[in-house]
Amino acid sequence: MEFNKIGEVKSSFSKAAVPKEMRKKVSEIVIKEEYLKGLKKLEESNYLVVVFAFHLAKGFDLIGKRRYGGERGVFASRSPRRPNPIGVTTVKLLAINENIIKVKGLDAINRTPVLDIKPYSVDIDTAQNFKKS
Amino acid sequence: MEFNKIGEVKSSFSKAAVPKEMRKKVSEIVIKEEYLKGLKKLEESNYLVVVFAFHLAKGFDLIGKRRYGGERGVFASRSPRRPNPIGVTTVKLLAINENIIKVKGLDAINRTPVLDIKPYSVDIDTAQNFKKS
Repeated sequence: MEFNKIGEVKSSFSKAAVPKEMRKKVSEIVIKEEYLKGLKKLEESNYLVVVFAFHLAKGFDLIGKRRYGGERGVFASRSPRRPNPIGVTTVKLLAINENIIKVKGLDAINRTPVLDIKPYSVDIDTAQNFKKS
Repeated sequence: MEFNKIGEVKSSFSKAAVPKEMRKKVSEIVIKEEYLKGLKKLEESNYLVVVFAFHLAKGFDLIGKRRYGGERGVFASRSPRRPNPIGVTTVKLLAINENIIKVKGLDAINRTPVLDIKPYSVDIDTAQNFKKS
């Protein structure tokens, strides 16, 4: 399947850092002009799910070694080096100015291709719903 | 960017239904044999983030009409008809048997190509972390 970026991350991180540190910072997603209309009413969401490509990740290992905890399968980790190098992160929406979306919590480096943006849903994106039943 | 499926959904839903109804059911993800090792220690996760392709979605509209609430941009909706038809859903892990992952909560129809599986992380996938600060 062929996917194309809808925009790009603008971040002060030009290379990978500790995700937790990256997530403390504010960054921007610059949406391509042709998709601008698709942002209508996005400002009603407090949080967004950002789907992006780990564009610098090269290849993958099915099993990775952890500093602690030994070996883990790639699907049991959030490593960027995956069969399909797709990242998914929930961010806080701070502001939208035309085609520029300012967010907090995005652990993606500068120039990361963004594939999709979705309104965050407690029902779809969290485990909370399962705990009710 | 070119992505390839790592497996496929096996569900009793052969066509799209109300996502909330679909999410009440149990379904399976059948992982390709070549990726089997990548599941190591996945059983330690209670919940998984499943990334999949809306393979039957044809095209997209930047603005969609809602039955209630008027017009919305595609990025302010969870519609399967998106510039990159990628779905993301958090599911409950019920069991893993070799290359078959049994889950609850997957709103994907039978034969949906699965692109990635990640361990669910309250920090990365929910808004909770922002509320602490």
